[in-house]
Amino acid sequence: MHELIKLVFLPAFANEMLSPLSDSAIGNFDGYKIAITTDAFVVSPIEFPGGDIGKLSVCGTVNDLSVAGARPIWLCASFIVEEGLPIETLERIANSMRHAAIEAGVSIVAGDTKVVGKGACDKLFIVTSGVGVVQADLNAKHIREGDVVIVNGYVGDHGIAVMSKREGLGFETEVESDCAPLWSLVESLLYGCKTLRCLKDPTRGGLATALHELAEAASVCIEIDEDAIPIRPSVLTACELLGIDPLYVANEGKLVAIVSRDEAEVALSIMRSHPLGKHASIIGRVIAEPKGQLVIRTTIGSRRLVEPFSGEQLPRIC
Amino acid sequence: MHELIKLVFLPAFANEMLSPLSDSAIGNFDGYKIAITTDAFVVSPIEFPGGDIGKLSVCGTVNDLSVAGARPIWLCASFIVEEGLPIETLERIANSMRHAAIEAGVSIVAGDTKVVGKGACDKLFIVTSGVGVVQADLNAKHIREGDVVIVNGYVGDHGIAVMSKREGLGFETEVESDCAPLWSLVESLLYGCKTLRCLKDPTRGGLATALHELAEAASVCIEIDEDAIPIRPSVLTACELLGIDPLYVANEGKLVAIVSRDEAEVALSIMRSHPLGKHASIIGRVIAEPKGQLVIRTTIGSRRLVEPFSGEQLPRIC
Repeated sequence: MHELIKLVFLPAFANEMLSPLSDSAIGNFDGYKIAITTDAFVVSPIEFPGGDIGKLSVCGTVNDLSVAGARPIWLCASFIVEEGLPIETLERIANSMRHAAIEAGVSIVAGDTKVVGKGACDKLFIVTSGVGVVQADLNAKHIREGDVVIVNGYVGDHGIAVMSKREGLGFETEVESDCAPLWSLVESLLYGCKTLRCLKDPTRGGLATALHELAEAASVCIEIDEDAIPIRPSVLTACELLGIDPLYVANEGKLVAIVSRDEAEVALSIMRSHPLGKHASIIGRVIAEPKGQLVIRTTIGSRRLVEPFSGEQLPRIC
Repeated sequence: MHELIKLVFLPAFANEMLSPLSDSAIGNFDGYKIAITTDAFVVSPIEFPGGDIGKLSVCGTVNDLSVAGARPIWLCASFIVEEGLPIETLERIANSMRHAAIEAGVSIVAGDTKVVGKGACDKLFIVTSGVGVVQADLNAKHIREGDVVIVNGYVGDHGIAVMSKREGLGFETEVESDCAPLWSLVESLLYGCKTLRCLKDPTRGGLATALHELAEAASVCIEIDEDAIPIRPSVLTACELLGIDPLYVANEGKLVAIVSRDEAEVALSIMRSHPLGKHASIIGRVIAEPKGQLVIRTTIGSRRLVEPFSGEQLPRIC
């Protein structure tokens, strides 16, 4: 997909707003900075422990705006529905979108629905787009040596929840998706933390890929401590069974925050006093070298480079 | 689809901006009126005479904003791509989006791409969302008895172009889709015409459905003259062969304008001096009764009510 974007879409649409390839495009409108984002949700199955495609579509778009420091104001949603999808399913999904939108303080103001014949799509796809008003200049370029890396809780829940439902794996403890709208957590951070450098939501490609992208963009090294990364035992077990690294597993209610060392404890306590940050943890720091790299200090004390996710991304995880 | 929207989505998302169910939602932002719209494009085949799904996706969204009197400023596009779609096809489509965006004076600022497995979608779906700044208060509620109805050219081209490609009908003269971004035509009208009441793009459901919706919204009767409606002979022939009424066939580069009688000739000449309005024609007028109805005066002099499209809409025409 990354190749597709670089080969096909960037050359065709190149413009100032698009080119940074971040989660949201940011444009100027009469003195305001406005963030715009769009995402196609094709998750399979469309309902999974802890959420469904509807909740995911609202949270994903809200979070893309939030990590750009933008207060989400308007969302719109387009539905592509396969003929024969039970109306009750659609009602449940619309309802969970409504709840997520209320939680995020955003309105779904425009929509479209297309029904296609049986076999022309797989049950339901939702595309949400969002508009937000930027409240703070968050950018990987603000990252400095000595900064601290914080994550707001357990990583890997979403990917494991979807995969275990899809593959019919019956784990002893059911893992629920962490899918949640992060704006109110971000707002608390913006309000309480003067040296918040940037935020990123570690969705497809997981924590490792997100941190690697930040290290590249800032031309610094990010070093994380294996011990410090919050991962549920059930997720660890599932990852071992599936032969995958939890650091590459998608999250839908997580963010990484990079703040100055001086404010690390402030940021941590802001997060921990928010329902979506109870298990927040300082997981690492920014160092000078090797530039553009992510380094992990393992439990046994060794250090190794962590590559961004390069193989096939897990399909239809969001 | 209308039922789905009314049954499922309106109750779930009810809010001030959504409820009017018009082509664009309009919200207030610091003294500006901002229009937002989203549309899913699932046309089959994805390439057809006169356009492709890419051009359609840009024009459709630009036109939804335009008929709301909004200058389109930002577009975003999400792609759902079936594995195996040739990269050259995608390049052609991205390129035609680029051309349509340039023609419309709008930037595609954000995007997303999801690839799904073979059989999980039919080649390519595109969802475009758009943001515009409202320049004029156009609303069916401004329609008055005595107003005049103008269309900017031949109707039915798009639907016939797609259907004849899809069904493999070899008509003697190939009909091309009228797919075009209408903003510059709308801008000329807004500039030159003080009594422009409202605009509407007769897409799915065609001219008849669009006019019926306006008559209902304004609680007036719209009366049109069969003789005055511009329809290409090739489209008429195709419609006869297919057993469909051209007034219900989708357009993608057409608008109906309702203006005061005094300014009808001004509006007509503004349209005719624009490349997308060369074949513009005054096709009818607003009368008092029967309220909420569309009446056609046929070639042979009779008058009959025209119902909005009620059967199955032609599937995947946009």
